[in-house]
Amino acid sequence: MASEKQLTVVTCTAPVNIAVIKYWGKRDEELILPLNSSLSVTLHQDQLKTTTTAAISKDFTEDRIWLNGVEVDMGQPRLQSCLREIHRLARKRRSSDDRNAPPPSLSYKVHVASENNFPTAAGLASSAAGYACLAYTLAKVYGVEAELSEVARRGSGSACRSLYGGFVQWQRGEQADGKDSIAQQVAPESHWPELRILVLVVSADKKLTSSTSGMQTSVETSALLQFRAASVVPTRMTEMIRCIRDRDFATFGELTMKDSNQFHATCLDTFPPISYLNDTSKNIIHLVHRFNTYHGQTKVAYTFDAGPNAVIFTLEDTMAEFVAAVRHCFPPEPNGDKFLKGLPVRSVQLSDKLKAALALNPAPGGIRYIITTKAGPGPQVLDSPHLHLLGPDGLPKPSA
Amino acid sequence: MASEKQLTVVTCTAPVNIAVIKYWGKRDEELILPLNSSLSVTLHQDQLKTTTTAAISKDFTEDRIWLNGVEVDMGQPRLQSCLREIHRLARKRRSSDDRNAPPPSLSYKVHVASENNFPTAAGLASSAAGYACLAYTLAKVYGVEAELSEVARRGSGSACRSLYGGFVQWQRGEQADGKDSIAQQVAPESHWPELRILVLVVSADKKLTSSTSGMQTSVETSALLQFRAASVVPTRMTEMIRCIRDRDFATFGELTMKDSNQFHATCLDTFPPISYLNDTSKNIIHLVHRFNTYHGQTKVAYTFDAGPNAVIFTLEDTMAEFVAAVRHCFPPEPNGDKFLKGLPVRSVQLSDKLKAALALNPAPGGIRYIITTKAGPGPQVLDSPHLHLLGPDGLPKPSA
Repeated sequence: MASEKQLTVVTCTAPVNIAVIKYWGKRDEELILPLNSSLSVTLHQDQLKTTTTAAISKDFTEDRIWLNGVEVDMGQPRLQSCLREIHRLARKRRSSDDRNAPPPSLSYKVHVASENNFPTAAGLASSAAGYACLAYTLAKVYGVEAELSEVARRGSGSACRSLYGGFVQWQRGEQADGKDSIAQQVAPESHWPELRILVLVVSADKKLTSSTSGMQTSVETSALLQFRAASVVPTRMTEMIRCIRDRDFATFGELTMKDSNQFHATCLDTFPPISYLNDTSKNIIHLVHRFNTYHGQTKVAYTFDAGPNAVIFTLEDTMAEFVAAVRHCFPPEPNGDKFLKGLPVRSVQLSDKLKAALALNPAPGGIRYIITTKAGPGPQVLDSPHLHLLGPDGLPKPSA
Repeated sequence: MASEKQLTVVTCTAPVNIAVIKYWGKRDEELILPLNSSLSVTLHQDQLKTTTTAAISKDFTEDRIWLNGVEVDMGQPRLQSCLREIHRLARKRRSSDDRNAPPPSLSYKVHVASENNFPTAAGLASSAAGYACLAYTLAKVYGVEAELSEVARRGSGSACRSLYGGFVQWQRGEQADGKDSIAQQVAPESHWPELRILVLVVSADKKLTSSTSGMQTSVETSALLQFRAASVVPTRMTEMIRCIRDRDFATFGELTMKDSNQFHATCLDTFPPISYLNDTSKNIIHLVHRFNTYHGQTKVAYTFDAGPNAVIFTLEDTMAEFVAAVRHCFPPEPNGDKFLKGLPVRSVQLSDKLKAALALNPAPGGIRYIITTKAGPGPQVLDSPHLHLLGPDGLPKPSA
């Protein structure tokens, strides 16, 4: 059955990003245009990434896609929307640029396979990395060299921020057609080498409101969200870009925490209310504030997306002490998981004074594990054919 | 030692109130003037009340006060502020009205004893009932007949709403001196006889941010609070008064829930953030929304103050089924407390269909007990001398 086909195959990777000025709410559901601008840090792919292989062939009879080894319906509107945008850009390029070799036929059907190197159960927003990778890989396989914000955004709004490394803003834009609603790099990943990022994966088994439906309800019911988008975020964007340019951690951290809190406030103001933070999340918030109070400055900052996991920003010189503080307040349970994953962290003893200042009752097992990482680059093309997720027959390779 | 003294003694009771449009934030810390108007329901004193005895005598050498049997410092600014206001009103009355007998001497020192009929540990806002009762009792003992909003407000802002029964608004007022920031009855307790109120006392051991310091931080740091006070609350006040006048439970309930959520949203937008709702509070929120969804209408509404306890509004015909739903989701633990206190509730079986619709994992012990009550009257004077909390010697009677 598995015959060798004439394939064009490309494999790429794309990163997860974590917003420090949050995106919540669309001004256009169809085009996926945001109510307000947002800004994120791209996480390093050594720890968290999506890998996607796309293959096109005149022999393929239909578009197909496999996510983490399981085939899913390619007819989903958001997948279709990405594919349609890629085809549009490819046609546009062909009509405007006749000098190059003609790109591979747009009539060829595509097979796509995509995998995350982190468990979906971790509750990390995998859709941003996933759709950024899809847009980037489809662009390569169809020979598109355009700006891909619009393609990625059609899959998942925040995916456009995963198209770049380092510090990335997604501008709200003013045009009705969304042409100016694009992602732009504010600073590359090399700009702030001391910055460290810790993902605190919190134990939770509750089913959460999806961000797509949650933000739509917020737009419809929260007066506070409308006010935030119109009157708070524009100033914060300017201030956040300044903090990053100046590597001003204290102000960067404070603004990051305030913006996370305000995003969750607008969720609570939604009707029915949406609540992504659980009691462990709140204890992490207390821990961070007490840690900073003890040090007399903002040395650590939290941010939370649409789930209970915390993402922590700090600098290299503070990471070991903060990890020790987390271990103290949330003693790891012997649950088979390694507690620390990612960049190595020195083991340090907490002072009794700091332990007293934290004053939190230990909550064993509240945090399942920590992933330590830093800012990283945008999407990458993988050259080795053995890294392709699709075999020469255009079907997923058996997992190793 | 205990000699009979020439005493003037008065004993009064005052109710707890629960806001459906929330007060959070002052525009004047000294005068205790609110950022926005608020509206509350006065709870019946059969279930929840403060009792206060005030005695004056020319033989007393100092002002003294006992709260729940323990003497506390009468020099506290808020107690002093109430006493000063009462003296001011008494002088004003004397100078404007010479026909009556002269009121008891303002130079007499006062002894005060005050008790709640509910445990402080229940986390119910006792300061409103306490300061309303203090203002009312001091007014009686010093012969003051003026409007007492300003006196009660000086103790605790929301105390002015406990000066009236039924449905009470506290108008923000516009004047800098606060003369127009007063409480007014919107409708008496007899207006909506079917209305029922359930206090769900949630298990919690955390120390919470006091509302006094919490609201001050919110005023200083939350842009959302300023927007809410200026742009959301005025419309909601008008709408809430209409709902009460029309006994429109569905809209009353929805607005009550939205306003509670928005108040907690502004707490979360405060920096550092304030969080009064715990995971049990949130499960109660889910329970209420699922219960209403099952019935296809708003039959039950929640509101939360500065703590995790829920206060539930419903109508008489729904109370038994909702209590059964609470028992189902939060099975009582054998902790020595009676689970249901207050008005009697019929025992009913939940249908399997409703159980399935609630779809919440039972959380035993999450709710300690329920107090069932209804709207009730304002402060009352108790005539029987045996109900005085102070004996003929002007000192607290030994507890029974």
